[in-house]
Amino acid sequence: MAIKDCINQLNETKLRHCLADLHPADVAEVLPEVSLAQRVRVLRAAGPERAALILYELDRDMVPPLLEALGPIRLAKVLNAMSDDDAADILGELPESQKDQLLSLMEEAEAADVRELLKYGKDTAGGIMTTEYVSLKEDMTVAEALASLRKLGPEVETIYYVYAINEHAQLTGAISLRELILAPPEARIKQVANRRVITAHVWDDQEKVAKLVAKYDFIAIPVVNDENQLLGIVTVDDILDVLEEEATEDILKLANVDAEGQDFVESSPWQRAIRRLPWLIGLLFGGLIAGNVIKEFSGTLEKVTALAFFITAMAGGPGNAATQSLALVVRGLATGEVDQRRLLKAVGKEAQVGIIVGLVSGSVLALVAYLWQGTTSLGLVVGLALAINITIATILGSFFPVIIHRLGADPAVASGPFISTLMDVTSMFIYFSLAAWLL
Amino acid sequence: MAIKDCINQLNETKLRHCLADLHPADVAEVLPEVSLAQRVRVLRAAGPERAALILYELDRDMVPPLLEALGPIRLAKVLNAMSDDDAADILGELPESQKDQLLSLMEEAEAADVRELLKYGKDTAGGIMTTEYVSLKEDMTVAEALASLRKLGPEVETIYYVYAINEHAQLTGAISLRELILAPPEARIKQVANRRVITAHVWDDQEKVAKLVAKYDFIAIPVVNDENQLLGIVTVDDILDVLEEEATEDILKLANVDAEGQDFVESSPWQRAIRRLPWLIGLLFGGLIAGNVIKEFSGTLEKVTALAFFITAMAGGPGNAATQSLALVVRGLATGEVDQRRLLKAVGKEAQVGIIVGLVSGSVLALVAYLWQGTTSLGLVVGLALAINITIATILGSFFPVIIHRLGADPAVASGPFISTLMDVTSMFIYFSLAAWLL
Repeated sequence: MAIKDCINQLNETKLRHCLADLHPADVAEVLPEVSLAQRVRVLRAAGPERAALILYELDRDMVPPLLEALGPIRLAKVLNAMSDDDAADILGELPESQKDQLLSLMEEAEAADVRELLKYGKDTAGGIMTTEYVSLKEDMTVAEALASLRKLGPEVETIYYVYAINEHAQLTGAISLRELILAPPEARIKQVANRRVITAHVWDDQEKVAKLVAKYDFIAIPVVNDENQLLGIVTVDDILDVLEEEATEDILKLANVDAEGQDFVESSPWQRAIRRLPWLIGLLFGGLIAGNVIKEFSGTLEKVTALAFFITAMAGGPGNAATQSLALVVRGLATGEVDQRRLLKAVGKEAQVGIIVGLVSGSVLALVAYLWQGTTSLGLVVGLALAINITIATILGSFFPVIIHRLGADPAVASGPFISTLMDVTSMFIYFSLAAWLL
Repeated sequence: MAIKDCINQLNETKLRHCLADLHPADVAEVLPEVSLAQRVRVLRAAGPERAALILYELDRDMVPPLLEALGPIRLAKVLNAMSDDDAADILGELPESQKDQLLSLMEEAEAADVRELLKYGKDTAGGIMTTEYVSLKEDMTVAEALASLRKLGPEVETIYYVYAINEHAQLTGAISLRELILAPPEARIKQVANRRVITAHVWDDQEKVAKLVAKYDFIAIPVVNDENQLLGIVTVDDILDVLEEEATEDILKLANVDAEGQDFVESSPWQRAIRRLPWLIGLLFGGLIAGNVIKEFSGTLEKVTALAFFITAMAGGPGNAATQSLALVVRGLATGEVDQRRLLKAVGKEAQVGIIVGLVSGSVLALVAYLWQGTTSLGLVVGLALAINITIATILGSFFPVIIHRLGADPAVASGPFISTLMDVTSMFIYFSLAAWLL
């Protein structure tokens, strides 16, 4: 039976039966296509364990009405069955009163774990870690460790890494299941574990954690506090989500869309318009300031009307050049390719690129303008103006995000509109100044 | 000793000694900061195993001169020590003659594996898979399976999944090490393995493979051919690289930069200028075509010079609106949030957003124009023109990439410049037509 036929099934026994054969991720993928009542029916029939997996995979916008419809008691059962980091993610987005009610209905131990996780910001290591990992006393033997793994296996999120802790709950070593299987059974954990463990701090930004996991090819990374006590682990499946989320954020910010909580299909047109309008209108005023520069030069413009024919190219070119270098630098900062050590070198290189790109574009425009309008002086003015403007734009597009980054702010969000407006104004000023002087 | 002090060490014994304490990923990170001669010294002192890990972590632009300097015999040893998918990646970027020479110098079995992988496109499942995995006959017992894992462990890329195959080398099941440890030792693999395995096809695009791994939270996914024969596995660490690579590509394409082989610091300014100039000049001509529209209306412009003051805002606004919806759709297509089923719904929603955004922006501009210039009719013309243009731009920005995607092309690369140029021209035409008619 196709997935869709199954989740459309109204008979509860048949629904339960066919759901058992489906992967929760597949169910979550088609669930948006059925009615709310049917979604609730599916989650009930799936049972808490599978409902937990399905619920977590759904788009966040779809969750609140489902929670409402499921009712708090059933919902608390689903949250019990969910891994603690996932439950914290879902609860973290609910209003305080609903969150407290659900936590009080959950099993005590689960609720305590989730409360612990809710203390941390959702974009920090603490916010994405799970407390369901295996830690063992460093004096245990390998054989004892494997025995406890068999016992703990079903409870934890990964058994592929085991962490050794001392009597103060401090992390002293880590060993992979792979190494554990290959180690002599009678050896002590502290003899075979790797002593120098790469860790994330509980308040580290999730982007930093993602970079560590990607750099060292980890399946999980331990999270510690200031005293090096082990608080949790972040697993690679959550890192995949972080990478997607951060890339989406950067893309949308570079395109001047407010990325927070966007959903492409579910959110209302009004909500989505509100996330774009402030940027559009802000940029509109940038364009109007540039227009005011043109107004200052209306005398020149009235003398040579042909100057107006080049305004679109003259405003667009530098904007495009700035966007190119802005995107390269913002992405380089995000992937770590451009790091502190290479910042100045990167901006220096970009300045050279700007000069080349400016000179070539300017020459092309000069030639075209001359052929089109048949006036050498006009060709000279538009070519020279474009060359200068594109060079400035390219340098600005790389330099500005670096400054913003140094100041600790997000280079993707602050740079675009500012550079865009600045270049609109600068471009028109340089263009018409040169025209007033040379024509 | 700091990493940097270590890799700057000239004394070979000391260098070898301190390198043994460093993680290859850390060495790779600082290696760009020393001379080529010193890089070679580091790779030699590290020994083939660690040199393999360091080499693979380096930026691709840095590799060819190192290969040259290491010499083919030593290099072949390093490639032998590298996992076969990584070796294939590096060899795949070398000229044919050098590749063949190195393959002939490598160990026969290793070289055969690498040759096999080189048959597949580098952005396909085959191109990123490894053949170093564990497959077992489905009739084996769990105890036998664990024993072979202990034996094979050091040779393979992951032992966390084990694949069951039948006598035709066809994949019949998969079981995680975690399940294997928890299973009764005397059970047969075919009794405990999951029979319905989610697989990637060897020619699947790497983006599709990444989506599967992210959706099902896999650590590895098996890769099969048309006959369902197991050819390799793709591990999650390679998927992290794919996600980063694809996000970078999308960001750069949306910013009109040729993403192929870009490196921010190492490549020459000329190379980088060449990756941007074709787009810049193409867009420049777009701006000139729009300028030609203005020229057609020079009579209207000479009558009302104030029309020129709004050209920058009128050209910029719709461009920005198109970029917003383009970025949302391109990203939605990349993450799978906008899929085949939701395409039309997504475009329909976007049309509504376009109307709202257009009306609000147009009203704002009309008011500002009236207050600035004191003419009702001019306010009406610019406001109406902007409202129409932004609405068209938003719809076009979502509709066009969807068409491109349906046609099987890459929506990120084809959409931006086309929409940008089309909107430049359309905006000016509508603006001046309304002006000619109403003023």
